[in-house]
Amino acid sequence: MAWFRSLIQVSATARSATKPRILDPFSYTLLSRFSSEPAPIHETPAPSPAPQPPTQYSGLGPTKPGEKPRVVVLGTGWAGCRLMKGLDTDIYDVVCVSPRNHMVFTPLLASTCVGTLEFRSVAEPIGRIQPAISREPGSYFFLSNCVGLDPDKHLVQCETVTDGAEPLKPWKFEISYDKLVIALGAKPTTFGIQGVEEHAIFLREVYHAQEIRRKLLLNLMLSDVPGVSEEEKSRLLHCVVVGGGPTGVEFSGELSDFIQRDVRQRYSHVKNYIHVTLIEANEILSSFDDRLRHYATKQLTKSGVRLVRGIVKDVKAQKIILNDGTEVPYGLLVWSTGVGPSPLVNSLPLPKAPGGRVGVDEWLRVPSVQDVYSIGDCSGFVESTGKPTLPALAQVAERQGKYLANLLNTIGKAGGGRANGAKEYKFEDPFVYKHLGSMATLGRYKALVDLRQSKDGKGLALAGFTSWFIWRSAYLTRVLSWRNRFYVAINWATTFVFGRDITRI
Amino acid sequence: MAWFRSLIQVSATARSATKPRILDPFSYTLLSRFSSEPAPIHETPAPSPAPQPPTQYSGLGPTKPGEKPRVVVLGTGWAGCRLMKGLDTDIYDVVCVSPRNHMVFTPLLASTCVGTLEFRSVAEPIGRIQPAISREPGSYFFLSNCVGLDPDKHLVQCETVTDGAEPLKPWKFEISYDKLVIALGAKPTTFGIQGVEEHAIFLREVYHAQEIRRKLLLNLMLSDVPGVSEEEKSRLLHCVVVGGGPTGVEFSGELSDFIQRDVRQRYSHVKNYIHVTLIEANEILSSFDDRLRHYATKQLTKSGVRLVRGIVKDVKAQKIILNDGTEVPYGLLVWSTGVGPSPLVNSLPLPKAPGGRVGVDEWLRVPSVQDVYSIGDCSGFVESTGKPTLPALAQVAERQGKYLANLLNTIGKAGGGRANGAKEYKFEDPFVYKHLGSMATLGRYKALVDLRQSKDGKGLALAGFTSWFIWRSAYLTRVLSWRNRFYVAINWATTFVFGRDITRI
Repeated sequence: MAWFRSLIQVSATARSATKPRILDPFSYTLLSRFSSEPAPIHETPAPSPAPQPPTQYSGLGPTKPGEKPRVVVLGTGWAGCRLMKGLDTDIYDVVCVSPRNHMVFTPLLASTCVGTLEFRSVAEPIGRIQPAISREPGSYFFLSNCVGLDPDKHLVQCETVTDGAEPLKPWKFEISYDKLVIALGAKPTTFGIQGVEEHAIFLREVYHAQEIRRKLLLNLMLSDVPGVSEEEKSRLLHCVVVGGGPTGVEFSGELSDFIQRDVRQRYSHVKNYIHVTLIEANEILSSFDDRLRHYATKQLTKSGVRLVRGIVKDVKAQKIILNDGTEVPYGLLVWSTGVGPSPLVNSLPLPKAPGGRVGVDEWLRVPSVQDVYSIGDCSGFVESTGKPTLPALAQVAERQGKYLANLLNTIGKAGGGRANGAKEYKFEDPFVYKHLGSMATLGRYKALVDLRQSKDGKGLALAGFTSWFIWRSAYLTRVLSWRNRFYVAINWATTFVFGRDITRI
Repeated sequence: MAWFRSLIQVSATARSATKPRILDPFSYTLLSRFSSEPAPIHETPAPSPAPQPPTQYSGLGPTKPGEKPRVVVLGTGWAGCRLMKGLDTDIYDVVCVSPRNHMVFTPLLASTCVGTLEFRSVAEPIGRIQPAISREPGSYFFLSNCVGLDPDKHLVQCETVTDGAEPLKPWKFEISYDKLVIALGAKPTTFGIQGVEEHAIFLREVYHAQEIRRKLLLNLMLSDVPGVSEEEKSRLLHCVVVGGGPTGVEFSGELSDFIQRDVRQRYSHVKNYIHVTLIEANEILSSFDDRLRHYATKQLTKSGVRLVRGIVKDVKAQKIILNDGTEVPYGLLVWSTGVGPSPLVNSLPLPKAPGGRVGVDEWLRVPSVQDVYSIGDCSGFVESTGKPTLPALAQVAERQGKYLANLLNTIGKAGGGRANGAKEYKFEDPFVYKHLGSMATLGRYKALVDLRQSKDGKGLALAGFTSWFIWRSAYLTRVLSWRNRFYVAINWATTFVFGRDITRI
């Protein structure tokens, strides 16, 4: 019996050894295959003999003449992913550093909180966006955070992400770059309000959506248990959304749709206790056409969302307090009041744009250093360009990623791909942003489509079922891979036929 | 503007109040609807005016003459869910108590760890299995653990599950039953080996599969980071499975399939470091036909799984130690060595069967008490019946659930549904278990189908592609709801076309 033979072999190996017997996963079956195969290519200075990762920095050294120049991309958001997709991997090796191995299709994230879409349908792994990363010997994805940058030495410092799942501590390493693209995104703003980080949930990552879903379902079930007072039941099932931008409005719309369609049927004991309140200091959807805003206000109110104009002063574990002293008890608090620069972006030794973003010129280069570019929510034009800061939109990030991929490819083809190799390169067409319009869904087969190029510009502004149809079609064709396009369509179809899934896993 | 009117209304309400202004979710828009609708039916002794859940026990009191008798089901595994599905809700109200609101389709759970199937495709919410639970005024699902039982008073004590997600502490409540069904399942056995609970992952619940998947993907990515020694890389990517029953074998097969098909393409830098070892003290798949066992051994070895016969003595954070002193370093450790009674089952004041299970007679009644039944992995025949303990299989649990549903329906129709109402009922056809055979998949389009009724019986025993086809078809038709049948088929199809999803979310 082959299995028994293996066992005997293992035992024999173990017995013949004089040192503590260790079952080495390579010891027997694969030994021959190993010696006949080339050693895996790693550009570490020298393979370390220590059993634990070395405490000294190791990493990827500068690229050598025979190798492709290396583009290091920090971040896996819209900007970084669009860039990686567009990079010519015949010219460059691509190394991506990010704490997540996927891109999130943010416009559809709100739909995953209530089960309209599945989490995996809106997440795209990097390897599917840029296959070279999992195949080319010199291209890598590192599940790590960038923790430092030395633009003079063309070096980034990184630290692995271990999530506490591993008994190992995180370790540090360095990567030399020929070109560096900073696409670190932004972090949600809290305006320094106490308790937001602790008690509210943001809606930027898949794990946020998972947390919202788990909490919503937990509250629905807890409120049904005997011994809960009427007041407590109302608190548990009061969902409060702070921030009336597209994310806040879309989440409120999805939630009210979930309540009207699914909660009434599946949690019929508590269906009259659940409510949604959307709190906004100014106007909801302020970037949209006036008529569309009125339409949205009407639709949301009609579907049971209460719109409150107020400023949050303080956030406690079970209630928020507004500026006028009003107390709002809540069971679920979702915070989406816009974004600002992250502490890492603040700490980088680079010129800044207004608002604390990484400053860039018309070609998205960071001035005063060589070979560093920045795109997406973390970057902004330096004042000397005379250009305004672009809004923190997926649309902007994606356009910048595409532009920069083309620029880097052109530079590479012209022989300027190496570190300090583009000093003589003549930069021509600068990045120009043209707004294509905005969309937002309100749930219940209603959406807004605003195709004007600016707030006061002219153009098509639609609301209602047609918009909803345009909204769905537009996103379905834009979801990056065929796999996810297929799953989004299937999710929508099954939600329509069977309702939303309420399993709490 | 409707929205602004709402705001004014809210502000007015707030101003007119003299006590601290509280934004009551019911205060205005829904007040009229509330007063015109009947109050939700709750059989609590009296609605508590306290804002926090009362510290005193409250709960569902004994059913009154005009109401349906109440069946309380503890657990949402195969046994409990099959029972609830079969109960006639025109006769009974159903109250289910469980820490999870869904049933797990366990035979397909191993496939979710590597992304062949999605987690939600193998989880079925209770409301879909027995819709009355979410609709009928007297039927409930409580997300709680049973913590005590008083068979004389026909009462169970429960405590809510809050997962630490809620600032509220768990609270206790009581439920009176007319009929009680104990279907609490079993817990994985560790044989008292140190470190198993701490370092190994079981494979019984969806969150186990999620943890395995997250850890596997984390290790794959960590091992690719610069600075990791060769030895550490081999350790991180050594997946060890302890226990050669169907779960362990199926998981090993899926894992080797994942390695051969997906890791080679998507983690090409580390593909030669990943290995699977299956450790079993006796024979793998001991309940299967000899020929099938040999076939399985051959197939697993061929697909790269190393089979080791050994007994685990100790489990450390990064290695396990076998009885003969061999040390096996691992990055992922999955433990599936069978199940035993849970601490709660041990503590219940009821007669026991051999092995510590809740003792039942031929009609699955717990002897010496009235109206208490037990089914599934937690129950066994008392010695006086002369019947052997049935294996802890989904098949047994499901058959018992179905039998008991029919029995309780018959008793209910005969007017014996109330507490102590079946004393005069003449119990006839006892529960008889007939084994329908076993199946296990080995990955790579190979499976085993053993249709013999006992280990020494005669009958069909098949291995290979045909078996795999039977295996898939059998499970596809058995997945409970149409929604999940559809999703399992879609998942299988997309895995075939696009490969497995490797997003770590």
